[in-house]
Amino acid sequence: MKLAIDAMGGDHAPKEIVLGAMKAVEAFSDIHIILVGDETKINEHLLRHDRITVLHTDEVILGTDEPVRAVRRKKNASMVLAAQQVADGKADACISAGNTGALMASGLFVVGRIEGIDRPALSPTLPTIDGKGFLMLDVGANVDAKPEHLLQYAIMGAIYCEKVRGIANPRVGLLNIGTEEKKGNELTRQALELLKNANINFIGNVESRDLLEGAADVVVTDGFTGNMVLKTIEGTALSVFKMLKTALTSSLKSKLAAAVLKPDLVKLKNTMDYSEYGGAGLFGLKAPVIKAHGSSNAQSIFSAIRQTREMIENDVTGLIEQTIKKLDTEMDKM
Amino acid sequence: MKLAIDAMGGDHAPKEIVLGAMKAVEAFSDIHIILVGDETKINEHLLRHDRITVLHTDEVILGTDEPVRAVRRKKNASMVLAAQQVADGKADACISAGNTGALMASGLFVVGRIEGIDRPALSPTLPTIDGKGFLMLDVGANVDAKPEHLLQYAIMGAIYCEKVRGIANPRVGLLNIGTEEKKGNELTRQALELLKNANINFIGNVESRDLLEGAADVVVTDGFTGNMVLKTIEGTALSVFKMLKTALTSSLKSKLAAAVLKPDLVKLKNTMDYSEYGGAGLFGLKAPVIKAHGSSNAQSIFSAIRQTREMIENDVTGLIEQTIKKLDTEMDKM
Repeated sequence: MKLAIDAMGGDHAPKEIVLGAMKAVEAFSDIHIILVGDETKINEHLLRHDRITVLHTDEVILGTDEPVRAVRRKKNASMVLAAQQVADGKADACISAGNTGALMASGLFVVGRIEGIDRPALSPTLPTIDGKGFLMLDVGANVDAKPEHLLQYAIMGAIYCEKVRGIANPRVGLLNIGTEEKKGNELTRQALELLKNANINFIGNVESRDLLEGAADVVVTDGFTGNMVLKTIEGTALSVFKMLKTALTSSLKSKLAAAVLKPDLVKLKNTMDYSEYGGAGLFGLKAPVIKAHGSSNAQSIFSAIRQTREMIENDVTGLIEQTIKKLDTEMDKM
Repeated sequence: MKLAIDAMGGDHAPKEIVLGAMKAVEAFSDIHIILVGDETKINEHLLRHDRITVLHTDEVILGTDEPVRAVRRKKNASMVLAAQQVADGKADACISAGNTGALMASGLFVVGRIEGIDRPALSPTLPTIDGKGFLMLDVGANVDAKPEHLLQYAIMGAIYCEKVRGIANPRVGLLNIGTEEKKGNELTRQALELLKNANINFIGNVESRDLLEGAADVVVTDGFTGNMVLKTIEGTALSVFKMLKTALTSSLKSKLAAAVLKPDLVKLKNTMDYSEYGGAGLFGLKAPVIKAHGSSNAQSIFSAIRQTREMIENDVTGLIEQTIKKLDTEMDKM
């Protein structure tokens, strides 16, 4: 299988992207990687490998670029060309650690949606305290969502969890402000009814305070709420760690004790680091499009490649397509 | 001034409620407290005091009661009678650590709204890492909100912060999924325009990841999002502390080091404990109605009483009423 990777996206591009790609071709003998970006800069880090090719381009989308406009105007940007490789059938999937909005636009305009999917969903795997993690979608591909979109998110999330994360019969929860059925707003109340009747292991409403405790394997929500909750989790965890650091360096005595605990604390911080769980998939597109974390190092890129490879191997896209088609047929019959 | 307090609400009622009330009458010579609840149980903890009276009732609203129905049917419940004291002019404000939904219903149906206020807002003060805290509203009094409601929340929050929290010209932020003006959903985009033109120190959109860093003094949002973010902050902080505890007890060496750090860690946990910041006001009612935390101890009840006293002393209700009236007149002229 062939993966197109935007070599210029992310805080540590192209070095860490190239290193991650080299690590991946060593680990997986069935993948071929196309690195898209500035050939000279890429070659500074790339050791020749017969399963890595470079597609040169000077253009790049910046983190500060307005996403939709950038994708439309910078047709030769490394990210857009990586997506184009997929659209042209020259790659089976693409990965970028660059501008999230621009990657969503590239996915939508260049790769295209699966027939029957109204809205793609950005779907990261977030940490839980038991280290198993959970999938949350949508975290911001679309700010407004209808109940039917949440049903599609649930189906896509369940397929991904089963096929790629290896969770049999994954528990799907609807993110809400209470567990009782009548809780929430119009959207959650209507979505609940749809989800209850869907062919998934729906466990009802889940509350945001229980997410890190592993309340569900797949957590479904609209993009506005999902983005808000994602950023709240990140921000709260970071703030607590910052306060912890201040507390642990407040006196010589504290510093000495903290030094003893350092390995435990680093391990703890890593558990909360969701770049360990691979990238965020943009589900609902005609091929896997994966957003790796902006601060990705070689290891995160390697994880994203492994994840993408499993999505292809297990034909997640094909399964989503068939399931949505079946669902639409059933709905038509009703 | 007179405060009616539901002596039967909360996990540690009536003991901690009574102890908190006794502490408050010692500290503040200008308050008179009416404890509403089971006289026999209250008297087990109450030392006679000429500024504490007991209003007896057997009935009580439980945490499991359906809020609106409970308030309508249990007319003699301690919480409802406390609100009735306010409605009858026998108390200036009321406090309860009981069922949040029932207290909101009591506030709305028994105490009543300020003229011109469409929706009351539940408004807790949450912790920041610098210990100053920020006010967030609404966190769940109303799941759906219109842009005009968010404007009213902003005005009420700014008045409260200035008068009770002593913050001159408080910074008001709109909770959103990005800081750029065009970010967000229909509600945030429309609210942003209203807030920009309001007579407050509006600083624009703020992101949930920056809340604990003190991004704003007053954070305005709809009740669904606010409740979601509140519970995410609580849940994430608790989960991180739980993981920390596991890490610190993983070996004998860790345990010894952790023992040295215990005072620092307890202090850290207390900074994150928002019961320290008093109760959550239900803003927009004809008198202060304060929800103390369900797990309130005597100290939290004391904080809630001090806060309520300052709301009365600074006539927060009157100021909100006048400001909203002026705003409505200005709107009519446009």
